[in-house]
Amino acid sequence: MTQRVPVIERILGANDRLAADNRARLDAAGVFSLNFLASPGAGKTSLVEQTVSRLAGRLRLAVIDGDIATSIDADRAAAAGATAVQINTGGECHLDAVMLQGALEQLDLSAIDLLIVENVGNLICPANFALGTHKSILVASIPEGDDKPYKYPGTYRGVDALVINKIDLLPYVKFDMDYFRRGVAALNPGLVTFPLSCRTGEGLEAWLDWVTACVRMK
Amino acid sequence: MTQRVPVIERILGANDRLAADNRARLDAAGVFSLNFLASPGAGKTSLVEQTVSRLAGRLRLAVIDGDIATSIDADRAAAAGATAVQINTGGECHLDAVMLQGALEQLDLSAIDLLIVENVGNLICPANFALGTHKSILVASIPEGDDKPYKYPGTYRGVDALVINKIDLLPYVKFDMDYFRRGVAALNPGLVTFPLSCRTGEGLEAWLDWVTACVRMK
Repeated sequence: MTQRVPVIERILGANDRLAADNRARLDAAGVFSLNFLASPGAGKTSLVEQTVSRLAGRLRLAVIDGDIATSIDADRAAAAGATAVQINTGGECHLDAVMLQGALEQLDLSAIDLLIVENVGNLICPANFALGTHKSILVASIPEGDDKPYKYPGTYRGVDALVINKIDLLPYVKFDMDYFRRGVAALNPGLVTFPLSCRTGEGLEAWLDWVTACVRMK
Repeated sequence: MTQRVPVIERILGANDRLAADNRARLDAAGVFSLNFLASPGAGKTSLVEQTVSRLAGRLRLAVIDGDIATSIDADRAAAAGATAVQINTGGECHLDAVMLQGALEQLDLSAIDLLIVENVGNLICPANFALGTHKSILVASIPEGDDKPYKYPGTYRGVDALVINKIDLLPYVKFDMDYFRRGVAALNPGLVTFPLSCRTGEGLEAWLDWVTACVRMK
């Protein structure tokens, strides 16, 4: 196993340089960008749909979707009103900076205010690969359970905001919000957090206001 | 990136040899073993708890839990009545055969009929690393959504049985069971499937009967 370590370090070094290039390109074009991280099925694509459809009148949006296979997510983002590009990783468990670089080449960045990158559904690997986006957003969800910050500390530690999706399911599952929030606070004190439901719309306004403020402050 | 490929191939080759060693060791001791795969929060640990507590009078059970961090899962398995060993991968996104080898050394295999290995919560990477266990079980869950077979084909293709957990949440979420099952059938025709709820107990008997039959037929 030990022989793998130096190779991965070289790859991560190259990835960080490409991520810096991506950031510079986004900044030069005046694009603000978010990287959505989550478990499979936490609701990244539903949050993309809600964000796109509700901000479409105010901001020019584009979405880059990462998946092992299919264009299901990009199709949903496009149907919600965004310019959408699908990346199929062909088995890779995360996006990396070179994949984002390729996707950026397919977009007219001068026509975009907000770019959302939806990473591969995975609570572990994507956190290790910078893309060059401005902020990372973790989408957690109630039915995943309240122990996830404790069990996936690396991802919780590295993000800039936390969405707690599917709060409409709180009456039907065992989820101790205080225990969950204590776990988050120990890893990422003061993390801005948005409990919401993409299904019912509850809590979405605070999230949309925050995103809009991020874009305007850029 | 291309330089990474041959190194990973060598690692996988070594992993397969160690997995074969693990299998031989389990067979020699008469232990039947299952490898549980799932997204974070699909309910692997709840299924371990239910399986252990309901089969404890009939079979001698042990559980090996893989996680990035904490012993939450092994503690739950032990509380349910199993001998439990926790593996903390320290960041690795999957178990591999050498980790299982180390955990097997901590167990008295002659005193075990059924060993459950609970892999790291991840729908992608664990499927690429054989452990030497006899059957792989995928635990899906209703709130994850009905598109997961289409988006994570590698994991759905490689398993020997599918548990569909949290069916008690069907009234509260959008989930087209026919669409889900068509996706599964295209990847893994005839896959034995157990819709159930670890929370309500519905459907558990069929799963427990199947596990018991697997152990007895060994």
